[in-house]
Amino acid sequence: MIPRYSRPEMAAIWEPRNRYRIWFEIEALVAERQGELGQIPREAARAIREKGGPRVASMTEADLARIDAIEAEVRHDVIAFLTWLGEGIGPEARFLHQGLTSSDVLDTTLAVQFTQALDLIDRGLARLLDALKARALEHRHTVTIGRSHGIHAEPTSFGLKLAGHWAEFARGRERLAAARREIGTCAISGAVGTFAHVDPSIEAFVAARLGLAVEPVSTQVIPRDRHAMVFAVLAVIAAGIERLAIEIRHLQRSEVREAEEYFHPGQKGSSAMPHKRNPVLSENLTGLARLVRGMVVPALENVALWHERDISHSSVERVIAPDATIALDFALQRLAGMIETLVIYPERMAANLEALGGVVHSGEVLLALTQAGMSREAAYAAVQRNAMATWAALGTEGARTFRDHLLADPEVTAYLDAAAIDRAMDPRLHLRHVDTVLARVFGDDEERPGDVDGG
Amino acid sequence: MIPRYSRPEMAAIWEPRNRYRIWFEIEALVAERQGELGQIPREAARAIREKGGPRVASMTEADLARIDAIEAEVRHDVIAFLTWLGEGIGPEARFLHQGLTSSDVLDTTLAVQFTQALDLIDRGLARLLDALKARALEHRHTVTIGRSHGIHAEPTSFGLKLAGHWAEFARGRERLAAARREIGTCAISGAVGTFAHVDPSIEAFVAARLGLAVEPVSTQVIPRDRHAMVFAVLAVIAAGIERLAIEIRHLQRSEVREAEEYFHPGQKGSSAMPHKRNPVLSENLTGLARLVRGMVVPALENVALWHERDISHSSVERVIAPDATIALDFALQRLAGMIETLVIYPERMAANLEALGGVVHSGEVLLALTQAGMSREAAYAAVQRNAMATWAALGTEGARTFRDHLLADPEVTAYLDAAAIDRAMDPRLHLRHVDTVLARVFGDDEERPGDVDGG
Amino acid sequence: MIPRYSRPEMAAIWEPRNRYRIWFEIEALVAERQGELGQIPREAARAIREKGGPRVASMTEADLARIDAIEAEVRHDVIAFLTWLGEGIGPEARFLHQGLTSSDVLDTTLAVQFTQALDLIDRGLARLLDALKARALEHRHTVTIGRSHGIHAEPTSFGLKLAGHWAEFARGRERLAAARREIGTCAISGAVGTFAHVDPSIEAFVAARLGLAVEPVSTQVIPRDRHAMVFAVLAVIAAGIERLAIEIRHLQRSEVREAEEYFHPGQKGSSAMPHKRNPVLSENLTGLARLVRGMVVPALENVALWHERDISHSSVERVIAPDATIALDFALQRLAGMIETLVIYPERMAANLEALGGVVHSGEVLLALTQAGMSREAAYAAVQRNAMATWAALGTEGARTFRDHLLADPEVTAYLDAAAIDRAMDPRLHLRHVDTVLARVFGDDEERPGDVDGG
Amino acid sequence: MIPRYSRPEMAAIWEPRNRYRIWFEIEALVAERQGELGQIPREAARAIREKGGPRVASMTEADLARIDAIEAEVRHDVIAFLTWLGEGIGPEARFLHQGLTSSDVLDTTLAVQFTQALDLIDRGLARLLDALKARALEHRHTVTIGRSHGIHAEPTSFGLKLAGHWAEFARGRERLAAARREIGTCAISGAVGTFAHVDPSIEAFVAARLGLAVEPVSTQVIPRDRHAMVFAVLAVIAAGIERLAIEIRHLQRSEVREAEEYFHPGQKGSSAMPHKRNPVLSENLTGLARLVRGMVVPALENVALWHERDISHSSVERVIAPDATIALDFALQRLAGMIETLVIYPERMAANLEALGGVVHSGEVLLALTQAGMSREAAYAAVQRNAMATWAALGTEGARTFRDHLLADPEVTAYLDAAAIDRAMDPRLHLRHVDTVLARVFGDDEERPGDVDGG
Repeated sequence: MIPRYSRPEMAAIWEPRNRYRIWFEIEALVAERQGELGQIPREAARAIREKGGPRVASMTEADLARIDAIEAEVRHDVIAFLTWLGEGIGPEARFLHQGLTSSDVLDTTLAVQFTQALDLIDRGLARLLDALKARALEHRHTVTIGRSHGIHAEPTSFGLKLAGHWAEFARGRERLAAARREIGTCAISGAVGTFAHVDPSIEAFVAARLGLAVEPVSTQVIPRDRHAMVFAVLAVIAAGIERLAIEIRHLQRSEVREAEEYFHPGQKGSSAMPHKRNPVLSENLTGLARLVRGMVVPALENVALWHERDISHSSVERVIAPDATIALDFALQRLAGMIETLVIYPERMAANLEALGGVVHSGEVLLALTQAGMSREAAYAAVQRNAMATWAALGTEGARTFRDHLLADPEVTAYLDAAAIDRAMDPRLHLRHVDTVLARVFGDDEERPGDVDGG
Repeated sequence: MIPRYSRPEMAAIWEPRNRYRIWFEIEALVAERQGELGQIPREAARAIREKGGPRVASMTEADLARIDAIEAEVRHDVIAFLTWLGEGIGPEARFLHQGLTSSDVLDTTLAVQFTQALDLIDRGLARLLDALKARALEHRHTVTIGRSHGIHAEPTSFGLKLAGHWAEFARGRERLAAARREIGTCAISGAVGTFAHVDPSIEAFVAARLGLAVEPVSTQVIPRDRHAMVFAVLAVIAAGIERLAIEIRHLQRSEVREAEEYFHPGQKGSSAMPHKRNPVLSENLTGLARLVRGMVVPALENVALWHERDISHSSVERVIAPDATIALDFALQRLAGMIETLVIYPERMAANLEALGGVVHSGEVLLALTQAGMSREAAYAAVQRNAMATWAALGTEGARTFRDHLLADPEVTAYLDAAAIDRAMDPRLHLRHVDTVLARVFGDDEERPGDVDGG
Repeated sequence: MIPRYSRPEMAAIWEPRNRYRIWFEIEALVAERQGELGQIPREAARAIREKGGPRVASMTEADLARIDAIEAEVRHDVIAFLTWLGEGIGPEARFLHQGLTSSDVLDTTLAVQFTQALDLIDRGLARLLDALKARALEHRHTVTIGRSHGIHAEPTSFGLKLAGHWAEFARGRERLAAARREIGTCAISGAVGTFAHVDPSIEAFVAARLGLAVEPVSTQVIPRDRHAMVFAVLAVIAAGIERLAIEIRHLQRSEVREAEEYFHPGQKGSSAMPHKRNPVLSENLTGLARLVRGMVVPALENVALWHERDISHSSVERVIAPDATIALDFALQRLAGMIETLVIYPERMAANLEALGGVVHSGEVLLALTQAGMSREAAYAAVQRNAMATWAALGTEGARTFRDHLLADPEVTAYLDAAAIDRAMDPRLHLRHVDTVLARVFGDDEERPGDVDGG
Repeated sequence: MIPRYSRPEMAAIWEPRNRYRIWFEIEALVAERQGELGQIPREAARAIREKGGPRVASMTEADLARIDAIEAEVRHDVIAFLTWLGEGIGPEARFLHQGLTSSDVLDTTLAVQFTQALDLIDRGLARLLDALKARALEHRHTVTIGRSHGIHAEPTSFGLKLAGHWAEFARGRERLAAARREIGTCAISGAVGTFAHVDPSIEAFVAARLGLAVEPVSTQVIPRDRHAMVFAVLAVIAAGIERLAIEIRHLQRSEVREAEEYFHPGQKGSSAMPHKRNPVLSENLTGLARLVRGMVVPALENVALWHERDISHSSVERVIAPDATIALDFALQRLAGMIETLVIYPERMAANLEALGGVVHSGEVLLALTQAGMSREAAYAAVQRNAMATWAALGTEGARTFRDHLLADPEVTAYLDAAAIDRAMDPRLHLRHVDTVLARVFGDDEERPGDVDGG
């Protein structure tokens, strides 16, 4: 992933140093267990740990270049690393990698890297959830218009809108935890998964030390359905980012102006139009979501490897494993920061709510009419007729409101008087269950409005 | 999905009759609860149930056509259904759908349909798992060559290969169960999710009766990340089907011939070449997997609906919800049947294992040499040198085997005698942990070889 | 594709009758040429044409069922058809399909079906282009605000907006023509493309009669990169539909209201909210675009068939060839109808243009200041400062316009007087090159405004 | 794209220096034309060119860092560059970028970068086509078995197989040329495409100097359907790479061994199994193809920008424009090298051809029987019966060949004698049209076998 969309902590997980560190740890653990089993001399295992550990911990650019040079010759990355490592260990190095196949090391390493990466993503989700919850509670009773099809529907609360996004990301976090469990397996089972040259107890030993589960049945590799699920979960989280980003982009539209990304002093929105303040973070997040979503396709294609494995997945993963996790990590942190500083305009929400002359209350009026005994069909026709008339005159001089129209319609007033119509048009009607829903989402302790300040 | 790839049970879930049946059930339950709450007359709820129930249970083609005709006029599918339903209920029909929005009915119905569909898919998985387990246990000790990169690697057991697929589908089944829990939610929350006109207790009542969970926070719709996860899980299962299908296709290749799809008497493989017996089921499954995998893309794009909802997801789901579930259901049943009847050729496996002159034992020989004290680099060079010489002469008159070459190489015989080489070349070496792995996969009770006969 | 999104003309192309008609035509042409070459008796060719032609032309449901029954036995669709056909032809039927392989018939038929389907799509594009051009010329001088990032940028003309969509679909039409040329090839080359049993002149004869090109080198099949390109082109056209549909959805938003889909008398926008008029056609088109775009993925996966062919592509194409063409055909016709009847609100456009207090003229003011000698940095800062101040007060009592602010800023008035500011704020400035652009797009004859009335 | 899969020439196209160089060129050309038009002083244009040109041509790391630092403050990349550039130009810098919007520069630059990138890809295709043609002509008469469904079908020539791939990449090259024409447009049309502040003649001037066409109607941006088509074409080429890579992987399978990637001295195929020679390049190409194919999805999603543009496409393109072109360029060069050095084993092809006891001639025998007067159904049954019997005994002691079986079947010998059967089993039958096909593919001058040596 390009630096512009990378945070250093996540990028470091995918850098050679971290990979080599994990490779070494696996090789050293295998040797230790083989020493315990008497398969190699205990002193060899100790030498590997004691000489190899510092060598790997202090790798220089020259070391990395040396490994690359060896790889250019042998055309095999693990052999190149082991050769370099052996140069620093001496004769005991011949006990390294005994009975292993490269994939034992590579796939278990990838599992460790994924668990590290998903933990960082989890932190991003946590920050985002905190931000959404705080803003949701802050605006639990901020009335705003709900929209379906982009058309004003009925009033709702801005906090409730944010709570919906909170719940989606909370689900994402649970899915991420499941994906982390799935991807966190260790396979040290040899060339085709038969443990021909490595005792299964070695695998169990390494798994335990690395905090991984044992892969119940590997071929040469850890099966790629696990990885595909990780990418799928990342993609669904990305889709949730996209949904929230598009919401903000809509709210910041010039005609809506209900919320706005924080605009830094000194920031320039456009080289040609100085008045511009664009929702560039949200737009950027929309694009990043596309990138992460697009990686599910190759990840799914990686599953059907030939026989005990082919290596077609490797080039794909070298690119998409870092790219998807780095981009998603970056996007979550960016989104969290954006929500934390989002400028929200309740007055503008109130103004927009009334901008259609009150027709947004058509549902309540319909209900009031049918409850007062009018047939549903007739009530629908009456309400629609008056709503459309209101709508048609919007913006013209002396335009009558929906309330005006209803009061002038004898079919309506036969069932409802002005007080009944006003009751149906009270926006507070729509907020009476908001606290209940927020309690369902955030838990009961958040339900009491008195708690909001500390949210 | 086209009839060619549809099973009637699954197709029925997505047909109008089933949809209308669920719509009615939801409307009737809402009315019942509203009757209990005193929001509508109890007799109205009873009339709806008693007159509407039989009407929906016995829908004719004429009824379906009547609903379509109404929809053509009002351009709204739920209103069309309610109008038709009301024609059979009479005046109490005006108490139908009170305070609901169409999406309350549509989305909860979709949740019910998905749970029905995923249950059928689960049955397909169960059948497939049974078939794989039976064949895996049957062939737990059938020696075959393991292959990486399409190249012979080391011996393994055919049962172990199948066990790997079993484990993958078992994971798929767990993911399916998780997806079913996620998708099985009920939302009856009104136009923008505020419960403005419906009490939350109605939602709880309907959810309980339908065996669904309550959606904690809906907008007008159930959030589409849930649906995206379902499609993702279906796609990963499809990828597992693809992996197994490609395995069979490889095994049936003319040069391999280790397994073969059952060929029916009377079947014709080719109009022009009567000798042909093609793995057409596996090839077909490969294609079906592509279809199901491809549906993740639009499913992910469906997540980011505008504001409280737009309806862009609807046309997508009308197509891919049936298509993905029908195709996957069909594929699983087809694959299960194929595995049940798969013709397996152990003799051919044994012949292929030896076809490379014994070089497939290079790993064991390498290990034996290093354990006998040779340096890893020297041992690798010696083994590689002799293996390549064996390989180069394959198929020529009087070609020497890998064993012949090794015995003629003094660098090798300095460390290993003929008996040691023969020990390294015994295929049984590779099977000694197979039962352990199978026990990890299938559970301990399956571990004892004595049980295999009944497998 | 489900009937809801199918037009009968397009659906018919993919129905068994049309397929069988083309199969027969190919078989009959092959026989005719083989008769000319003396490879089969000329009378046999004549019998095939004379007895087979009417049989195929008048196929009944019973005939279709009979073919299905034969296929259920022989498990081969072409053999099933030939058997049924032979039943009506008699002994000369043995000269049918001589030297052919099924794919010769299947792939050439698919080529014919694709050319038929693409021709229908071309008609849809033509209708859409006519509609867009007419509305573009009608509104060539209708001033509206241009928006980038969803934020008001500078004025433009509504006709110019539509012309951009016209140009995109015109490019789509050219790409479609290229794809049609690519897909329109005939292969009659036998089991692995060697013409072992069929003379190449037969292929040339059939190609010429069917209006196809000869496939220069086929294996058993016509290579699937051709088909992938077709799906790619359909997907890009679908993306263009999506872009226009999203534009309309934005314009119909309650806060924008600059254009609106025609709302039929009797139509109901929502069962719960009678005031609703939703852009449901555009939303539907957004979803259909997702479907068509998603089919590129399996189409690309279909390219890499094994060796001279495997049949994994077949199940994919049985679904996506009809689905993509039917959905796109439907979408184009729906979109064309929508544009033809689109309700456009120029007054509302004018009102929106001024809704931000004139800041949309910031670019012209910036330019005027720099041209008057102010440094770019200072001018940018001055314009930005005044624009933001205007923006901040929008909607408040007595809010000052951008013009007011500029005139009160001595740094600005040092360079520009009121007249200069007013010149910079004249929306007509932005339309002076519109006719030039329209002429570039539509051709010179459309350039003269006098022609607009008839547009 | 990671360095492992990048060639320096292609990577350089996407590096900041090249981007800034093009940005400058556009700004300088605009100023020159504005000088000609008298819109800015001619000396200013000259100063921009004379002072800016060397400044950009000799950018140091410090310059790049300086631009990044400015961007961090103003949060706008073009403004940051212009500020840096202005620092070296002095007061005339205020005439830079007059009337332009950033996208004028960015999108035209992207068009230039794409044409540069596609030219490099074209060179890769050219090299690959040369390699394929040379190997095809070298092996025009090398008999090998054709396979459908992975099952032996009929003999063909290895040269013919390669010619099919040649033809596919030749089509890819034509599509690439079309995509290059499509993407090579210049837009200098201002904030919303109205030319409000820039004369259209400036656009024409810049386009001509850069070798681009004028974009007939831009909004703020060049429409993204053009870019989507580029990615689609790259993806279809990638799919062709995948098809050829999978072919090689199949041919190198241990059981097939008809061709093999060149194995370098010193190369190690496996750390654990020294005998391994794996088709790692082809496998790698399969993965790279997945990556490039997967980028079509986000590219298609980039088309539907909001109104005159949103910026969601930008992050996507910053990643996939370099990634897709770099990966494809690398893959083409790798594939070309692999074909150039591919080790081909004609003897092994001949051996495989006969490995099924001659049943691969079943098609010719079928044809001979029907031509001798047997009914198609009876002939099919007789041939299938004898072929299946041959097949069933393959590999057993004293197994009879297909020829043996046929000669022992009186139903067959009633129509064909031994000589007729032998004629039907002559592999040369299948090569008689190969030169015709190669001439269709490569042109007539290549048809004469005498030319092969120089091919």
